[in-house]
Amino acid sequence: MTILFVAIFTFPFFSITAQNNFALVIHAGAGHVSEENLTDSMQQQYHATLALALKTGEDILMNNGTSIDAVEASIKILEDSPLFNAGKGAVFNLEGKNELDASIMCGRTLNAGAVAGITNIKNPVSAARKVMENSPHVLLTGKGAETFAYEQGLEIVDPGYFFDTKRWNQYRRFLKNRVENPDRSYLDNNDHWQDYKLGTVGAVALDQEGNIAAATSTGGMTGKQYGRIGDSPIIGAGNFADNTSCGVSATGHGEFFIRNVVAHDIAARVKYNDQTLEESAEEVINKILVDQKANGGIIAIDKDGNIVMKFNTPTMFRGFITTDGEKGTAIFR
Amino acid sequence: MTILFVAIFTFPFFSITAQNNFALVIHAGAGHVSEENLTDSMQQQYHATLALALKTGEDILMNNGTSIDAVEASIKILEDSPLFNAGKGAVFNLEGKNELDASIMCGRTLNAGAVAGITNIKNPVSAARKVMENSPHVLLTGKGAETFAYEQGLEIVDPGYFFDTKRWNQYRRFLKNRVENPDRSYLDNNDHWQDYKLGTVGAVALDQEGNIAAATSTGGMTGKQYGRIGDSPIIGAGNFADNTSCGVSATGHGEFFIRNVVAHDIAARVKYNDQTLEESAEEVINKILVDQKANGGIIAIDKDGNIVMKFNTPTMFRGFITTDGEKGTAIFR
Repeated sequence: MTILFVAIFTFPFFSITAQNNFALVIHAGAGHVSEENLTDSMQQQYHATLALALKTGEDILMNNGTSIDAVEASIKILEDSPLFNAGKGAVFNLEGKNELDASIMCGRTLNAGAVAGITNIKNPVSAARKVMENSPHVLLTGKGAETFAYEQGLEIVDPGYFFDTKRWNQYRRFLKNRVENPDRSYLDNNDHWQDYKLGTVGAVALDQEGNIAAATSTGGMTGKQYGRIGDSPIIGAGNFADNTSCGVSATGHGEFFIRNVVAHDIAARVKYNDQTLEESAEEVINKILVDQKANGGIIAIDKDGNIVMKFNTPTMFRGFITTDGEKGTAIFR
Repeated sequence: MTILFVAIFTFPFFSITAQNNFALVIHAGAGHVSEENLTDSMQQQYHATLALALKTGEDILMNNGTSIDAVEASIKILEDSPLFNAGKGAVFNLEGKNELDASIMCGRTLNAGAVAGITNIKNPVSAARKVMENSPHVLLTGKGAETFAYEQGLEIVDPGYFFDTKRWNQYRRFLKNRVENPDRSYLDNNDHWQDYKLGTVGAVALDQEGNIAAATSTGGMTGKQYGRIGDSPIIGAGNFADNTSCGVSATGHGEFFIRNVVAHDIAARVKYNDQTLEESAEEVINKILVDQKANGGIIAIDKDGNIVMKFNTPTMFRGFITTDGEKGTAIFR
């Protein structure tokens, strides 16, 4: 009976508590996992990690902490898990290395920080925050970003820390595919994207002071090359926050999110076009991106605390705590 | 008399010819050059190079070429000149190297390409175009971007090609300043920005088919470190084009242009907020950025061919050809 209780109410959990003066939403990647391919045990692991990330952010927000602290703390939980394509669970690039990107933005000040192509910082989201707070810059890359991060006292790890057998096997399948299909036809295959790319994590929070923050972290795409940078560290594309409209974190086929400046476009529709956050996200994710055959999703919170979790894929790992005190985690539609 | 004619009508030149079905606008950096510090001979060089860049793009547009071809060709002229902080005239980073960034975007398809931190490609704008047209990616960086560029057959140069005595002396002054002012107080000095940072180039065109394109190219800021990337290669920040609204290329203090997603915000105000391009650019450049004490400017063309050249600095090197057949180059207000 206890186990049944846990199974129903904790994995996935859904509950209603007291009214909140804050809100929090997280994602850990939009994708194509079919229900039969995800064992009950795996589903429980995903729900438990999402719930822990939510709880970590909730504790901060409940104690009148800042939305910036909350999104950073929630994302560190997801980065430290091997389940998601960020931090510890990052995918391998073409050379068999892990290159990580992250960004963070404060909706009150419009200050922002981002790092791209880093290989030895345990929590890329914390590096992004240091860039935001302790440098005059927004985007630092590669060895320069790593130098800055260790000058700031962040935890450095041997690149081997990011090794994960599941990701390595994905990388080996990628290399096999690449050799066997020199026409790159596998790029058109949804399974390819599921296996190799998705799993970016993100968080958006509204704190008790009414300040919105958003953060995004990723390992990019398996087999990426040429120093490719996706949308996650690009302010306006994979991440954006503005107290006067909303905060947004994205996951999906990053190039389309850059071209469509997705995070800022959703905010601009809310700010200038009199669209609700729901209408704005629906149009961008389920119309514009679908018309372009681009997979992905976003999470967002507007200045009134409305939460949206919108995705055009069968699944998006996600969790939420609303101002009404509703909370939950989910994987499928 | 002939000399007077040249002085007035060619440097700067201003003329009205036949009605055009196209428009073109270029910039080569917003800044603080005072009229007395710019000799007549230097002014003539600037005007002549701007006029050549304009003419190069105009020839393409007049012969029914594409806006993408026009902006690339115009920018190559500016990149090949040592006068501007892009290509040949790029500034030096903290390590005494030239690291170049560029981007290009097609307003018809929303396809885009960008490169950042490259050191040996003669024309970064052409590398950005190859990324747009021949890769599934938008943004490539560092050695990876260079590898892609030479695989695409672009002209490679020895990094010494970018050496320029004027820039090297700026770099030496920067290092002296840095040692003598460890508190970095020089960062608050407008002369600092003028000397070390400004000079990014850009072009926006509307072709006879009604397609808008925009491109931006830069050497970044003197003494930049930590793999800093500014707004020029960031789609939505330093560059954006959308046939349904406008094309924009920016120049200025890049971090502020990233945080405010300036190029896309100007387009979004036109598209969603019923603002004219003039009103939109005025609000973003002369209100929002001025409130943030951020220097810079933009050039833009909307779908109806209206041109805007907006800057909150004393100078912006610029040139334009309107649909009414007006053309000209200018430096000061």
